[in-house]
Amino acid sequence: MSSALAAAGETAGERVALVNGVPQATVSVFDRGLQYGDGLFETLRCEQGRVRWFDRHLARLSAGCARLGLPVPDGPLLRREAESVLEGCPRALVKLVLTRGVARARGYRPTGDERATRILTRHPWPAATGQEFRLGLSAVPLARNPLLAGLKHLNRLEQVLAQRAAASAGVDEVLMCGGDGEVVSGSMSNLFLVQGGTLLTPPLLQCGVAGILRSLVLELAPQLGFAVRVTPLSAQQLAEAPALFVTNVRLGVQAVHWYEGRRLELDARGARLQELIDHAER
Amino acid sequence: MSSALAAAGETAGERVALVNGVPQATVSVFDRGLQYGDGLFETLRCEQGRVRWFDRHLARLSAGCARLGLPVPDGPLLRREAESVLEGCPRALVKLVLTRGVARARGYRPTGDERATRILTRHPWPAATGQEFRLGLSAVPLARNPLLAGLKHLNRLEQVLAQRAAASAGVDEVLMCGGDGEVVSGSMSNLFLVQGGTLLTPPLLQCGVAGILRSLVLELAPQLGFAVRVTPLSAQQLAEAPALFVTNVRLGVQAVHWYEGRRLELDARGARLQELIDHAER
Repeated sequence: MSSALAAAGETAGERVALVNGVPQATVSVFDRGLQYGDGLFETLRCEQGRVRWFDRHLARLSAGCARLGLPVPDGPLLRREAESVLEGCPRALVKLVLTRGVARARGYRPTGDERATRILTRHPWPAATGQEFRLGLSAVPLARNPLLAGLKHLNRLEQVLAQRAAASAGVDEVLMCGGDGEVVSGSMSNLFLVQGGTLLTPPLLQCGVAGILRSLVLELAPQLGFAVRVTPLSAQQLAEAPALFVTNVRLGVQAVHWYEGRRLELDARGARLQELIDHAER
Repeated sequence: MSSALAAAGETAGERVALVNGVPQATVSVFDRGLQYGDGLFETLRCEQGRVRWFDRHLARLSAGCARLGLPVPDGPLLRREAESVLEGCPRALVKLVLTRGVARARGYRPTGDERATRILTRHPWPAATGQEFRLGLSAVPLARNPLLAGLKHLNRLEQVLAQRAAASAGVDEVLMCGGDGEVVSGSMSNLFLVQGGTLLTPPLLQCGVAGILRSLVLELAPQLGFAVRVTPLSAQQLAEAPALFVTNVRLGVQAVHWYEGRRLELDARGARLQELIDHAER
């Protein structure tokens, strides 16, 4: 498959793609993923030829499929395909996009006999910048919809707008607020506020994505003596926070050096939490 | 271009597609339209080889581009391409999708040097069913985000979920409510409540799409003696409404025969409004 995959790569073999098991880098313009964002995605951390925390990704994807009325994904097939696009890369990100498939008719209403499209793309592991991590607060709100909350679905314009503004502001990531002004998450990460022996993170019942790293932190932090509380956080609490972590599969447990131009404390337990997570099999 | 377009058609020449001026029916899997719904669309009514109300579509599209930070679209080019895919069809719908283009890097943040992708697809004009139009009330809410309100952007999962439920309920269209329970619009149409000599339609400052037909009704209805008011509408007002219209480019001014199982009055001024709109050049 090596040469075919390379041929399908768009940027001199750096990015490769597999669509429904076939090495190709295109999809139909009639795919409902493009037409409506009618689908889901996962970003998989791959190391030594294996997908980390695959069962958690599959569980979230399956929950999303149930919510959207997509067929239950074939886990072993997805894992095989993800590992096949690695092609011996020691470390990479593999993005899995699963859509409802090519539209059978015009309009939002699915006919029910669409065949899901699965797209796997390999992306090089980003080089570490070695720079301090800067976090801001976005003016772009997260719209509240409990039917979509928690899912990693393809409707991501809010995050695009937030990251576009973050680029202008010279920060790496921005926190986003829900309709009542409560802080929900970063645009591409979940949020943990470190307050003494307690880790606080917002609930995700109205908006936000239930991150894989977030679930790992919630489970493993007690081993370091942390109490963990899922609780609403206000912008004021953030403005006074002594220390913050943001988490996602790529960043891991990322200590925040600067929040809205204010230098934060660095909590050594972040690195220990990262070690625990690095060793977590599931 | 005829045979090439036919070759690019997916369903025996019924649907044809043009991507950046080239007859083809595929896009890159790395297109940000697919990855994030990072783009906009327009559904164009085409008759006698011409796009109806093109200037209004272009104005809405341009406003959306300004909001998302996409380059100003080339109106004359879009019009020429839309008319070229018609290929002598007396009547058709042409869908225009405009995305930020192929991602230059992984992640939500645009690099700013993407080149927009424009996709035009032709769809046969749906055959009239001759059946009574049934409208329901959806349990799927419309999330509120003033930064996206009014735009015809590609993040349409809420509408997909609403139409999926509408199919099960056996209705043609469903009304959707915003966060405070106020009725905003149909999943694919705008809403007008007929109350004596007044047409009432909800504001679209928090969610919903600013429809082309809606703008035409707002401008032309006074010629029939209607007063027009843009005002919030509650589910209770809908439950007691004597007559309703829903509007979009395909349906025109569609009288609602049944709302939530209740038979409505039919207002003859709907047909006269439709005639006025049919003759509106701009």
